Amino acid sequence: MGSSANEESLDLWQTLKFDAHGLIPCVVQDFQDGTVLMVAYMNADSIRLTIAEKKAVYWSRSRKSFWVKGEQSGHVQNFKELRIDCDGDCLLMKVEQVGTAACHTGRRSDFYRRATSADTLEITDQPLFDPKKVYGS
Amino acid sequence: MGSSANEESLDLWQTLKFDAHGLIPCVVQDFQDGTVLMVAYMNADSIRLTIAEKKAVYWSRSRKSFWVKGEQSGHVQNFKELRIDCDGDCLLMKVEQVGTAACHTGRRSDFYRRATSADTLEITDQPLFDPKKVYGS
Repeated sequence: MGSSANEESLDLWQTLKFDAHGLIPCVVQDFQDGTVLMVAYMNADSIRLTIAEKKAVYWSRSRKSFWVKGEQSGHVQNFKELRIDCDGDCLLMKVEQVGTAACHTGRRSDFYRRATSADTLEITDQPLFDPKKVYGS
Repeated sequence: MGSSANEESLDLWQTLKFDAHGLIPCVVQDFQDGTVLMVAYMNADSIRLTIAEKKAVYWSRSRKSFWVKGEQSGHVQNFKELRIDCDGDCLLMKVEQVGTAACHTGRRSDFYRRATSADTLEITDQPLFDPKKVYGS
């Protein structure tokens, strides 16, 4: 629930609310079929780089560095559109996923497990590439 | 990037990684047309309630209480499917959005503003209901 001032702002940088670490979550969606591929984090510089380079650049919280998606695998994400929610604290980015699969396990989406009950999961999607071949052992 | 142990787990509660506040972000997607409606936060109890009641229940970080989506507006979200990402630190929930619009501004999606450049936004979607009539002044 955003403040009314924020939810009508048309200035990108005044609208964005970064967390205490300077990060904002970004939902990444296939621009054609609407598949939610992944959720990653961006900081202000990775947003600027993504828009300028037209390739998705995230911030890796574990490595504490820029993460050019697909840099190693070649499965880059071509930037199509960036949207901001009413709160200004979440992004939605539409991309063209090169190589179809966004997940490092070789699957199309990171969300390849579905809850079948309150306790168990099932894997619904199979890998489209072999991670060992793409990333090495 | 999840650990290999986590990314193949089929136990929901062992898979989920909550943050320091016991919360996990949840991408909420229309189960039919794939529109990303919003991102909200859940805790373990709101996940259990959502699965049990078949209605989306989030955790409001600002009010520090359960947030039964649509409780005031009637625009509830009927639960269809819950997915977990490879890291276990993000959810994707597919819902049927009663009343079409998920955003408290009356729009279908919270993501009604698009970045047109590195600095400016445009509002691409118009309200489907009048928030003043639904929520009062």
